Amino acid sequence: MKALRFDGKDLKYLENYPNPRIDEALVRVSLAGICGTDLEILQGYMSYEGVLGHEFVGIVKESKNKELIGKRVVGEINVGCENCDSCKGGMERHCPNRTVLGILKRDGAFAEYLTLPERNLHIIPDSITDEQAVFVEPIAAAFEIKDQISLNPDWKVAIVGDGRLAQLIIPVLKTTCANITCFGRHENKIERLQKLGIKTKIRIEQDHEYTFDLVVEATGSNSGFLDSLKLVKPKGTVILKSTIASKENLDLTPAVVNEITIVGSRCGSFRPAINALDSGVISVDGLIESEYPLEKFQEAFTHAKKSKALKVVLRP
Amino acid sequence: MKALRFDGKDLKYLENYPNPRIDEALVRVSLAGICGTDLEILQGYMSYEGVLGHEFVGIVKESKNKELIGKRVVGEINVGCENCDSCKGGMERHCPNRTVLGILKRDGAFAEYLTLPERNLHIIPDSITDEQAVFVEPIAAAFEIKDQISLNPDWKVAIVGDGRLAQLIIPVLKTTCANITCFGRHENKIERLQKLGIKTKIRIEQDHEYTFDLVVEATGSNSGFLDSLKLVKPKGTVILKSTIASKENLDLTPAVVNEITIVGSRCGSFRPAINALDSGVISVDGLIESEYPLEKFQEAFTHAKKSKALKVVLRP
Repeated sequence: MKALRFDGKDLKYLENYPNPRIDEALVRVSLAGICGTDLEILQGYMSYEGVLGHEFVGIVKESKNKELIGKRVVGEINVGCENCDSCKGGMERHCPNRTVLGILKRDGAFAEYLTLPERNLHIIPDSITDEQAVFVEPIAAAFEIKDQISLNPDWKVAIVGDGRLAQLIIPVLKTTCANITCFGRHENKIERLQKLGIKTKIRIEQDHEYTFDLVVEATGSNSGFLDSLKLVKPKGTVILKSTIASKENLDLTPAVVNEITIVGSRCGSFRPAINALDSGVISVDGLIESEYPLEKFQEAFTHAKKSKALKVVLRP
Repeated sequence: MKALRFDGKDLKYLENYPNPRIDEALVRVSLAGICGTDLEILQGYMSYEGVLGHEFVGIVKESKNKELIGKRVVGEINVGCENCDSCKGGMERHCPNRTVLGILKRDGAFAEYLTLPERNLHIIPDSITDEQAVFVEPIAAAFEIKDQISLNPDWKVAIVGDGRLAQLIIPVLKTTCANITCFGRHENKIERLQKLGIKTKIRIEQDHEYTFDLVVEATGSNSGFLDSLKLVKPKGTVILKSTIASKENLDLTPAVVNEITIVGSRCGSFRPAINALDSGVISVDGLIESEYPLEKFQEAFTHAKKSKALKVVLRP
């Protein structure tokens, strides 16, 4: 089959990559999104080697569960061992023996086919298009915030960053909090948020400092983290929604002095994300900028790496 | 009066430092403790210049409140402006205009006299000696943890560090949690904890990794923070109880991947600390290693800087 494989150094397009083994459900990938994590993996994150990609929608081709065959699905990307305390305690996403689609010891979605256990798959209702369903995984990651902390509707909320993930986090938070300000730097991204009724700022001014109850860091940069500590008020909360790959000097003193709570946040449950797309609570209109076939991966990744880029998808 | 003043470069003993202005309560300092924060200030932390010292017990000499005069007191170290939102909301310790005894824009306790507003003072009952009362401020800082998070008695708890602050945090946590392990490196400090029935380890072994519900970082070092992230289990909590002064490379990726909650923790209310000493719930026996007069400050600080040192106190 056709697949995009990262060998630890280069991303390579392979025409004859072996089809995956099928002791799990076999899914023909319809559409797959390029995510910031994919770009980080190319920089060495997770030391991953294999087929990239973890945001997808596809059609089940083979499965022990005959009712799944032919169905349009998305899939939770963490596969636990089912035997450890984490898995038994319902924390499969934190299983120490887990594999993760396109991220850890498991070939991903930038290929014609992928496999996942049946329990990881969610059937997508007809009301949701492929172009919407491909966002279920990152929307689920945004909803994870609501699982982790109890949002107060009166909170003053800041999002640092206006990128792909911020564009999804903001409407999710907006389902509870009305007072949201996005600190971003890209005209096209900011404009999209303004249309959603979000206040946007291109820089932190003095009267923003130490005034936000909740700040979501969605840039994955050291400076975004420092900005977050500057925006959050004493005893407030900062959500780290992106891995900060650069191991730069980082001073946590302000977090201690101001008694900040910093919450790391990763993947979330798919069900609320699917429901939000189905009900129209979350809109992803205008987020996909371009679609490329797998063989044009170099153009696709060059596009995705642009700082202005919103979502770039591959159609394997 | 006699005072130890830090001029931003050197700590100097002054025989004729001006007595403090007395629009606040005037306190004759009986005993004052040298804290890790004092040692950090000498390295440039807070860019503080003035009389050092914030852990003390003393006797009120002058006050608008005549009932305070002659009383033995300890004092909350943060002095808010009483006008801002923080102060009005009961968060005087986080007032952006605050002064802090011996730390920020307010002469401290390594002097014959200090002043504090009457509202900051707490009368010490006769059941508590000066040698115990001098620990109220750091015990209050330890109790702050209980104000910030809801401790679960079933939690497996780790403390990273065995120093002055760890020695107080551990008995405070022990009032709720039975299963506590201290990771420390100093024989004398570890022995003291073993006598309190605490499990101690000198290094992290593989079966400790990712197993603790709560980890308290009490070393103030980068390596202590990294150890904490290694000990805490997915979705667990790390309390930062010390400012990490060294601005070294710090990788927060494990906090995101494992969805850790990191809580910065600083000063606490004095009342629970006084009650705990009064009732004997917290013992500070054996924590004071040496007492020096103010003029022997060089010996005192040399002693306090030793990695083996427990508490060193000054008697001005």
